[in-house]
Amino acid sequence: MEVFIEPIGRLINEFSKLPGVGKKSAQRYAYRVINMTESEAQEFAAAILNVKKKVKYCKVCGNFTENEVCDICKQRDKRFICVVKEPKDVIALEKLREYKGVYHVLHGVINPMEGIGPNDIRIRELLARLSEDEVQEVIIATNPDVEGDATALYIAKLIKPLGIKVTRLAHGIPVGSEIEYTDDVTLSRAFIERTVL
Amino acid sequence: MEVFIEPIGRLINEFSKLPGVGKKSAQRYAYRVINMTESEAQEFAAAILNVKKKVKYCKVCGNFTENEVCDICKQRDKRFICVVKEPKDVIALEKLREYKGVYHVLHGVINPMEGIGPNDIRIRELLARLSEDEVQEVIIATNPDVEGDATALYIAKLIKPLGIKVTRLAHGIPVGSEIEYTDDVTLSRAFIERTVL
Repeated sequence: MEVFIEPIGRLINEFSKLPGVGKKSAQRYAYRVINMTESEAQEFAAAILNVKKKVKYCKVCGNFTENEVCDICKQRDKRFICVVKEPKDVIALEKLREYKGVYHVLHGVINPMEGIGPNDIRIRELLARLSEDEVQEVIIATNPDVEGDATALYIAKLIKPLGIKVTRLAHGIPVGSEIEYTDDVTLSRAFIERTVL
Repeated sequence: MEVFIEPIGRLINEFSKLPGVGKKSAQRYAYRVINMTESEAQEFAAAILNVKKKVKYCKVCGNFTENEVCDICKQRDKRFICVVKEPKDVIALEKLREYKGVYHVLHGVINPMEGIGPNDIRIRELLARLSEDEVQEVIIATNPDVEGDATALYIAKLIKPLGIKVTRLAHGIPVGSEIEYTDDVTLSRAFIERTVL
């Protein structure tokens, strides 16, 4: 990379850290920044710092928020809790504008191969919510892969004795893919046809 | 985009301005930034600001530099000038480690459709260099497309009367593509087989 002068090489290196960005793409992004106006570059840099500064996790559900508790937890129907792996899954589901309940973000799934057990994700916090609010149904929306399925079954086993209905998104979602990348129609269908575990 | 809280939506919007970056990629990049450590995010933002602050254009050849005059102009054989459209073409050629001369970056090519004439690119500066230094050969390495060819012929016509050899990279470069994306072997071949205009 020594063909680049230091500031350009450094920026290319930073862009290369983004997921799926190779050297060629990183170079193109760096050239774009060089051609930005001073204020455009400042806005870009400020947006990066701002997101680190302002984005926190909701202390109730674990979703992205700028406050202590997120807007979804504050405003929506607490009788329904939809359990997801990551905050970005909440965004995929919210785009449907169909679900009116709240969420619970696990921040991971059970994965013995990587040493991630039930205590490493936010299952305890989920159980605590069940005893506080009058929850009617827990809808599990982990990815339809081995870890996602295992996590769903584990949670279902814990919750069922409490007399709360536990459901899982229907297999309208293509198996092996991820919730985040499922098209809206399929995801919507999976929501409607969710099955009792 | 209202499903995103403001700081995230803002960052996604910034990433979307990069060339070839759609909404999905911009989202992935934003998530990556959220998961960065504080200092990683600061380094990223600093690299963006740094590149705008430090990268200038060499007052001789028009290439990227941190100084008044770039290292290539300071150190290399001034009898050979390779003329390119953009600074990124210099980088593509430098990777070969074959050429020992200097460069001249036009910062564009003649394009009547977009209203870009000979006076809008750095042709005048090129001619000025020819009268100052003892130039033996001008190698034109504009892209092998209509505008690149037209610019090459235009420059050749101006320089030939001065008794300086004018060459053009051989058609080893796939026609219709861009210098920046040509593989090293092809680009190297084109350099060796450059033809007299």
